[in-house]
Amino acid sequence: MQAQRLNLMLDSVIRLVRRGAMANAINLLTKLRPVDIAQILSQLQAYERETLFKAFTHHDLTKAAEAVSEMETETAVALLSKLEKADVTRLLQELPSDDAALLVGEMPAELREELLDTMKVEHSTDVQELLGFADETAGRIMTPDYFALDEDVTVSEAITALQRRSEDFEMAFYLYVVDSRNHLLGVVSLRQLLLNSPSTPLKKIMIGDVIKVTTDTDQEEVARIVATYNLLAVPVIDEENKLAGIITVDDIIDVMREEATEDIYALAGVDADDRAMGSAITSVRLRLPWLGLSLGAALLGVAVMQFYLATIEHSILLAVLIPVVVTMGSYAATQTMTVVVRGIGLGEINWDTSWRVVLKEGLVGLITGLLVGALTFVIIALWFDWRLGGIIALTMILSLLIAGVLGTWIPVLLKRFGLDPALVSAVFVVTLTDVITLFFYLGIASMLIKYFKL
Amino acid sequence: MQAQRLNLMLDSVIRLVRRGAMANAINLLTKLRPVDIAQILSQLQAYERETLFKAFTHHDLTKAAEAVSEMETETAVALLSKLEKADVTRLLQELPSDDAALLVGEMPAELREELLDTMKVEHSTDVQELLGFADETAGRIMTPDYFALDEDVTVSEAITALQRRSEDFEMAFYLYVVDSRNHLLGVVSLRQLLLNSPSTPLKKIMIGDVIKVTTDTDQEEVARIVATYNLLAVPVIDEENKLAGIITVDDIIDVMREEATEDIYALAGVDADDRAMGSAITSVRLRLPWLGLSLGAALLGVAVMQFYLATIEHSILLAVLIPVVVTMGSYAATQTMTVVVRGIGLGEINWDTSWRVVLKEGLVGLITGLLVGALTFVIIALWFDWRLGGIIALTMILSLLIAGVLGTWIPVLLKRFGLDPALVSAVFVVTLTDVITLFFYLGIASMLIKYFKL
Repeated sequence: MQAQRLNLMLDSVIRLVRRGAMANAINLLTKLRPVDIAQILSQLQAYERETLFKAFTHHDLTKAAEAVSEMETETAVALLSKLEKADVTRLLQELPSDDAALLVGEMPAELREELLDTMKVEHSTDVQELLGFADETAGRIMTPDYFALDEDVTVSEAITALQRRSEDFEMAFYLYVVDSRNHLLGVVSLRQLLLNSPSTPLKKIMIGDVIKVTTDTDQEEVARIVATYNLLAVPVIDEENKLAGIITVDDIIDVMREEATEDIYALAGVDADDRAMGSAITSVRLRLPWLGLSLGAALLGVAVMQFYLATIEHSILLAVLIPVVVTMGSYAATQTMTVVVRGIGLGEINWDTSWRVVLKEGLVGLITGLLVGALTFVIIALWFDWRLGGIIALTMILSLLIAGVLGTWIPVLLKRFGLDPALVSAVFVVTLTDVITLFFYLGIASMLIKYFKL
Repeated sequence: MQAQRLNLMLDSVIRLVRRGAMANAINLLTKLRPVDIAQILSQLQAYERETLFKAFTHHDLTKAAEAVSEMETETAVALLSKLEKADVTRLLQELPSDDAALLVGEMPAELREELLDTMKVEHSTDVQELLGFADETAGRIMTPDYFALDEDVTVSEAITALQRRSEDFEMAFYLYVVDSRNHLLGVVSLRQLLLNSPSTPLKKIMIGDVIKVTTDTDQEEVARIVATYNLLAVPVIDEENKLAGIITVDDIIDVMREEATEDIYALAGVDADDRAMGSAITSVRLRLPWLGLSLGAALLGVAVMQFYLATIEHSILLAVLIPVVVTMGSYAATQTMTVVVRGIGLGEINWDTSWRVVLKEGLVGLITGLLVGALTFVIIALWFDWRLGGIIALTMILSLLIAGVLGTWIPVLLKRFGLDPALVSAVFVVTLTDVITLFFYLGIASMLIKYFKL
């Protein structure tokens, strides 16, 4: 729905809920797509959302479940925790098992066990199986409701099978071909079924070289593969090459949004669960450790300055200009690190070719350092003193060179050791560059200050 | 292909190219998927890539074209500029018109005209039509090769039509239903064709309430719609509600990656075309303006400090601690801004609900300010002097409050006025917070310094 119509609808719903006209509000919701219901619910105040959703669950359980699976996970879990447990169970049973697993996986362990115990066995086993895979892996996000047939099945038999279980599986556009022990042999697109004669066996028209992932493949890697090969779904196999599930492109898009958010946040020192529309207390809790880390880094700088206090006392201008050199070093480090972390994220940089990037970024640091250093020299020389300008220019050249090298090396090394390059680089690189820059600046100053008075 | 196998293949290709064994290198490439060829070519040195690709174009034009359409646009354009013009023309004619338009659109105007003139008319008119739409709009990225039929066509006629033009259009899983004047009436999925009896007319089985975009819809908005409604393709209509083209989910994934990169880059002050594997000169050229801006912001801070020079001269410690207050303010501003910019990007924040976010972020700023301020007070009091600690703590509370409010307001306002919130906020918010923080710090200090000696 267009944003404008959605906003109008939201206003009406809010008005009805506040007036206590629940039945009318629900009537409005029923006419909408599940996604739109989810968006409207997300925009309500928490208590309005809970009241309305409770009533909606009793009115149309299936649609309520569909709406839940379109919500942000955090919002959905919070909302479910306010319902009666029996209602939650019934609602979870309406969901595809991958969506149910996503929600149940985020609930407190005790509640999770209780819900799984009360769910019907055929639902809970699927969910439990998915929850058995590690977080952020293909196994965790796949759906076991795929469409697979034997290689000897003919096109017309396949079409009959498809017609029979039409509502049973998600977004099917591929049909997977397996042998009697469920080993993945090939893939046939729905279009191939339309294009080939009814009596053709699937093994004649299937593509045998299937692009696939394993249950333990990282979800970011799955997203990269789907994006690279323009797939609509990717099959997931277990360690015995047996088909375990599929991941459809709509879930991949969610993964991509989530991973992009994680990268953006990590580079800025923000926790992945921090949301603009979330609660203030959550944000405070999530941001404090990062602010503390930043404070620690800043105090480390103070320690360096204290070490050179005698030099600084020589000239107050030397102190006043400290933020300039530190800012430029941090800024250059952030630029390099951002480009490199994104390059790693998009799969453009790998370990073997990383030396080329280090070389390039070092060169970029040196050249920008020379240019910005020269400019700063002129400004400081005209404004204050040419010798001070010289010290700052020299510091900047070294600082930007270091920023280029560290900004490349540290993320690449972290990735090499299996750590998230974005997460740790942001603090590491900037702090290290700052401290080294301070040592350069005050070190050069204390050497030269013997020869002239600033 | 798995990364490891791809790397092995890359090594072999490099060895062959360096030995001048072009025919063998080409033989290796021919066996690969276009995406994999594109990846291998991208990893080669520029001159190796050019030599190999020239030879490959003469060997298998179609596959060469497919590989080009899988490359980063910048790499592809650079590569094409090294080919004979006649070869470029032939290669462009092999591409779907949206891919051709993407490449031609990035070429210098003169070359663009020349190529369009030499292309066959049926190709060049399609490309020129797409180029008529503004950059980053639905019209620019859509493909005109969609599959549409009249509402009175039956299922069996539709299947025959599909079989006849099977190679003509991209990734078809939806069939669009139009009237005699090409107005969009509805949509039918391929699966519906399989599930309904052959004699059913399309108008009986189509979904009439089609989610669609117009040719001037921003590509970011298109991506949001496709992601929200889990679509595999979205139809694009012109101002008369006539079907103009479609955008498939694989192109949307490219848009999402591009837009995420833009957001990440903009927040760090990096130009969107800056690539880790790109040339050093390009990076230098693209980063210098941002570094210059950052230098300007830092010098603005120096001007503020100069204004309070008399106060700073009272106590060298006051000067040494400046980076601490400034760092914390910048950091808090960056955190808030990142969360807010991402929230806008994901469509979670709109103008009407933005006051709630401002309130929340202001509150977060105040609380974190109180907590971090208290911690800093203790540290500075123990390390240096409790009165200095008090000044810093007070500054931090005000600074983090301001950071929260500005970090929310500025991106929201920029968005409201149609500007990219990410791009401009990064410089604005941080500089403004820094300068205000300095005024707070030195202002408070110069007021209090009359009453005690630090």
